[in-house]
Amino acid sequence: RTKVEIYQYVVLKWTLALLIGLITGLVGFFNNLGVENIAGFKLLLTNNLMINQKYHQAFAAYFGCNMILGVGAAALCAYIAPAAAGSGIPEVKAYLNGIDAHSILAPSTLFVKIFGSILGVAGGFVVGKEGPMVHTGACIANLLGQGGSRKYRLTWRWLRYFKNDRDRRDLITCGAAAGVAAAFRAPVGGVLFALEEAASWWRSALLWRTFFTTAVVAVVLRGLMQFCHQGEGKCGLFGEGGLIMFDVNSLEPAYTTPDLLAVIFLGVIGGLMGSLYNYLVDKVLRTYTTINGKGPIFKILLVMVISFMTSCIRFGLPLLSKCVPCSGECPNSPSTGFSMHYDSFQCPPNHFNDLSSLLFTTNDDAIRKLFIDSSESANAAFQLSSLIIFFVAIYLLGIVTYGVAIPSGLFIPVILAGASYGRLVGTVLNPFTDLDAGYFALLGAASFLGGTMRMTVSLCVILLELTNNLLMLPLVMLVLLVSKTVADCFNKGVYDQIVMLKGLPFMEAHAEPYMKNLVAGDVVSGPLFTFSGIEKVGTIVHALKVTGHHGFPVIDEPPLTDAPELCGLVLRSHLLVLLKHKTLFTRKRIMTRSTIIKKLKASDFAKPGLGRGISVKDLEFSEEEMEMFVDLHPITNKSPYTVVETMSLAKAALLFRELGLRHLLVVPKIPGRPPIVGILTRHDFMPEYILGLFPNLNRHK
Amino acid sequence: RTKVEIYQYVVLKWTLALLIGLITGLVGFFNNLGVENIAGFKLLLTNNLMINQKYHQAFAAYFGCNMILGVGAAALCAYIAPAAAGSGIPEVKAYLNGIDAHSILAPSTLFVKIFGSILGVAGGFVVGKEGPMVHTGACIANLLGQGGSRKYRLTWRWLRYFKNDRDRRDLITCGAAAGVAAAFRAPVGGVLFALEEAASWWRSALLWRTFFTTAVVAVVLRGLMQFCHQGEGKCGLFGEGGLIMFDVNSLEPAYTTPDLLAVIFLGVIGGLMGSLYNYLVDKVLRTYTTINGKGPIFKILLVMVISFMTSCIRFGLPLLSKCVPCSGECPNSPSTGFSMHYDSFQCPPNHFNDLSSLLFTTNDDAIRKLFIDSSESANAAFQLSSLIIFFVAIYLLGIVTYGVAIPSGLFIPVILAGASYGRLVGTVLNPFTDLDAGYFALLGAASFLGGTMRMTVSLCVILLELTNNLLMLPLVMLVLLVSKTVADCFNKGVYDQIVMLKGLPFMEAHAEPYMKNLVAGDVVSGPLFTFSGIEKVGTIVHALKVTGHHGFPVIDEPPLTDAPELCGLVLRSHLLVLLKHKTLFTRKRIMTRSTIIKKLKASDFAKPGLGRGISVKDLEFSEEEMEMFVDLHPITNKSPYTVVETMSLAKAALLFRELGLRHLLVVPKIPGRPPIVGILTRHDFMPEYILGLFPNLNRHK
Repeated sequence: RTKVEIYQYVVLKWTLALLIGLITGLVGFFNNLGVENIAGFKLLLTNNLMINQKYHQAFAAYFGCNMILGVGAAALCAYIAPAAAGSGIPEVKAYLNGIDAHSILAPSTLFVKIFGSILGVAGGFVVGKEGPMVHTGACIANLLGQGGSRKYRLTWRWLRYFKNDRDRRDLITCGAAAGVAAAFRAPVGGVLFALEEAASWWRSALLWRTFFTTAVVAVVLRGLMQFCHQGEGKCGLFGEGGLIMFDVNSLEPAYTTPDLLAVIFLGVIGGLMGSLYNYLVDKVLRTYTTINGKGPIFKILLVMVISFMTSCIRFGLPLLSKCVPCSGECPNSPSTGFSMHYDSFQCPPNHFNDLSSLLFTTNDDAIRKLFIDSSESANAAFQLSSLIIFFVAIYLLGIVTYGVAIPSGLFIPVILAGASYGRLVGTVLNPFTDLDAGYFALLGAASFLGGTMRMTVSLCVILLELTNNLLMLPLVMLVLLVSKTVADCFNKGVYDQIVMLKGLPFMEAHAEPYMKNLVAGDVVSGPLFTFSGIEKVGTIVHALKVTGHHGFPVIDEPPLTDAPELCGLVLRSHLLVLLKHKTLFTRKRIMTRSTIIKKLKASDFAKPGLGRGISVKDLEFSEEEMEMFVDLHPITNKSPYTVVETMSLAKAALLFRELGLRHLLVVPKIPGRPPIVGILTRHDFMPEYILGLFPNLNRHK
Repeated sequence: RTKVEIYQYVVLKWTLALLIGLITGLVGFFNNLGVENIAGFKLLLTNNLMINQKYHQAFAAYFGCNMILGVGAAALCAYIAPAAAGSGIPEVKAYLNGIDAHSILAPSTLFVKIFGSILGVAGGFVVGKEGPMVHTGACIANLLGQGGSRKYRLTWRWLRYFKNDRDRRDLITCGAAAGVAAAFRAPVGGVLFALEEAASWWRSALLWRTFFTTAVVAVVLRGLMQFCHQGEGKCGLFGEGGLIMFDVNSLEPAYTTPDLLAVIFLGVIGGLMGSLYNYLVDKVLRTYTTINGKGPIFKILLVMVISFMTSCIRFGLPLLSKCVPCSGECPNSPSTGFSMHYDSFQCPPNHFNDLSSLLFTTNDDAIRKLFIDSSESANAAFQLSSLIIFFVAIYLLGIVTYGVAIPSGLFIPVILAGASYGRLVGTVLNPFTDLDAGYFALLGAASFLGGTMRMTVSLCVILLELTNNLLMLPLVMLVLLVSKTVADCFNKGVYDQIVMLKGLPFMEAHAEPYMKNLVAGDVVSGPLFTFSGIEKVGTIVHALKVTGHHGFPVIDEPPLTDAPELCGLVLRSHLLVLLKHKTLFTRKRIMTRSTIIKKLKASDFAKPGLGRGISVKDLEFSEEEMEMFVDLHPITNKSPYTVVETMSLAKAALLFRELGLRHLLVVPKIPGRPPIVGILTRHDFMPEYILGLFPNLNRHK
């Protein structure tokens, strides 16, 4: 590359980071605006009917709104982009590990993810917008990186530098971080999330770029929120709106040794419940996969069932709850946002229903109410019975909702369940401790998050950024450590589980113990297709047609060399580009290096957008062409990474994973006839495959 | 390993993390306590003389105290542990990159680092305790990891699992993070510092353990500070003491577009001054290296000169400054700590000298005064002239102080200079901006830190944790990004510069561009010593004596195999262990695998403590023994990583670096007589070496 090209590349890199930040910030704000306005309209409508004691009409309105929104989200998912269902974090994680699942970052997925998420969250489901925001950020990054959609002919020439795996991966890491930053308004948390949970490979330079992206998101969100707060009604019903949930700037919480024990206890139970959550989500998901597999209409039906259940629980349960008299005046003006509104529901004047103020509102507002310091307002205390009912309802609803065909984040359900659990413990322990129940709610949320997601530093920082009080750090850390440790004894983190359930071949960072007992040669399999340095077109076309391999070893044979020797590795995509240029074929085995280099530029071999490469079926050849030869040397990677067949499989796996390879050539130890034994790919390192070959291996040793 | 052993290992791993956190926290507190009490005594003494207008005696007392403390620190460094001089961060960084410099983490270094740092900081030098705390944390981790000092026969058997490079590196990463956490009371910042600046290899599992360690540090510090604040005088003169510098819980700072421009301007100038700082530090350091090389007495003399200069500047300059009348009562009670004390110095009653309140106090207190919000106290405003004099004095003193033979951190001098620069800009711009001058001081400190250290996320988080206000994030981020970008155009970060100056062979994360034009075979050099699978003792001893190599290829030759083939790699340290057991020698070339495995356990080959291995000179052999044979197969690593000689050097460098190798075997492409071409080690990848071999290579292409 020349100096000018390097300069262009650097400028472009940072411009893209800026754009990702800007657009993700805008989308994040738009998402919140949409949810707050739609949900606000729905709740206002229902509330007005309730005040006039038209209970049946109110339920019908509430149920109807939820159903319409839910079906809308489900229809988008089922018919336009099935890949947009679910959280999206497992898919992004798998992508960054090197697994390019079908249309996971396509423009249609982006569209459905944004609108489906707004409809789903506004539709009262126990789902969050955080996971979908991460996926949205990744989609935006991908679209920008490939210069728009190739399908819609929107590609830009100057993006040619980004048509490779590494740069694209970097961009998508930035996008994921920007998504977290936009969802939680937590820029540092976003960077750490990308580092801890999303990325499989990390470079120091990336830290800086990711940080820049999340900083842009933070600035954009701040600017737009200031704009909204300048005048009443500028942004409709958008109030405190889901961005900073809980702005506590109180003094350092004082705690004593008994408090510490209580917190550890909270962490242990939280870890247990978190791993139980994972277990149940896994079971439910398996059932849903079968149902969803039957067709789009079944997906929509399933969403309708869940929507009905949710509406019944959200509307019905509060009716069973006792009314509480307000201390002082009841803060009842829902027209300016619902955040601090304590709901009268079916109660007489000057009373409010504490269960309905949790259930009959948006999820964000419910979390805000659970986190509030009980000393701040006398109305902030909850009845024990309400907390228990709310906890059980949300815990179960969260489990049965994940997996239906709408974009559904896991953060909010887990935080809701955890916060109510923590508030419950805090209320029970109130006579014995100085810590406030609101603080316990925060710790409870931390314990559930630690128990399900198994992140540590990033969760901790996200929670601190949500609450804007760094002095809470030690206890939040403690509870996260305890709950993660407890939960790790039982199962894996929820995202890892989902990755496994989807059958994505995820490469773990460490080699499995049993790999130490195997060598690389043991797992090499299948018939190996190799090409000569100058190969007959027919042979290449045949090999491309009968196999699905993405890489083929190239071997130089006599008379080019004295003995057969390994020349390198050639990729399917590069072969296809070469085959398209039929003028490069020759009638004899001759080197045509210079002609090829003249006719083809490096950019012709750049990686195309997702799933839009040429297929071998698109190419047609005459009989005569099939008999001609083509020189593969110019497109062969002459320095592929190799291992000797006697290399320990564990070490080969380490090499494969740390360098982020897709193909690893296995060469014979003793020079023999064929200079190559086989190729190792990602699938050859999967435990299922290896244990299938060697069923007697002890999985844990 | 059995299950019990794995369990022991895990328990031990976490126990060590806990211990590192505990001890580093204790040392950090002890350090602060020492500095505050010694410096407090010194300042009280001088102040009392000043109040009685005995100016000459006051100067003598001040000068004398500083000189005694300085000479004490220098003597410790010069005679006991020369490795303890300087910051220590470059050395820790190099260690984590795989460079084990002489006694850099030895117990004597730890001792001198702790006490030298206390004496140096209390002695009024413009040095910080942050770098030394990082080094201290790393030393503590190393000592615990090797189970105490081998020299003093304090080793524990159950630590055998940690006698390898990887576990030791992990521990020292935790130690470095704990050091930052203890110095700044910034647990998250500590983790990020270890990730961004210190560590060369990072594993996700480490994130969690590091986080635990820093959490322990935070809890310990908090507990001890609470203890100190419970009763007056419990901890002597220890007041607000250097832990949280600046506890701002004000609202979100409001800023407009002109403010943003001002901040960008601040960042640009900060970046320029930061890179100038690096340039000058480098020049000064080269001079000092020559002086210090002449012997311990020259080191002490140099410290005395700098101490004299510092005393003159700190005492003399304020005399030139104009007195300012206090608004209201002068806050003059230095007996309870100096933090908010505005110094009367030579001024009449109800006046104070603003320059002396910055210069004639501890560095921590000066920073606190610069950061203070000017709206908080009318006395908090500074004269422009005082700020200019202070900035110039500290900027130059900081440069000439680094490199003298005392433990000296770079953070505090840079923060001091940056904060005064920012405060200066803020005071000048005061009529035009809404941002407070105290806030500008914070941004100025950020710009200088970004310009010298070139960290981003970690600095940002450390600054936020120092100030406990997350809402300042966007502007701090912006200024860091600008100043780092500007400074990167001129030179490298200060720590990288020092690593280079010390000649440590640091492996960069990326390969240099010119490596793409070379192949692995090009840089292989020197006579290669190889051993047979069963080798004559004399040959081994000879090879060990005439070379300094740490690894030797082992080649199986006929009659053991049909043709010579590469068996693997054997390490010098393992050879020495084998040679110590003379009963394993045989008279003939025979395999004695089973005997060797019976007689030697894996733990015999464990890596010993720093620099305490056996040397070949310790072993003596009779003529007869020299003629005997020994079977190397059991101690040979049979799966060494190899590359073909035609592999691109850039790719080989990537493999070497990403997998953290120490030896990389180069094998011939075409099977020939010797099955190995050479060994690549760290030194073969150093730019100086490669450019020496190929002087015509373009360094930047």
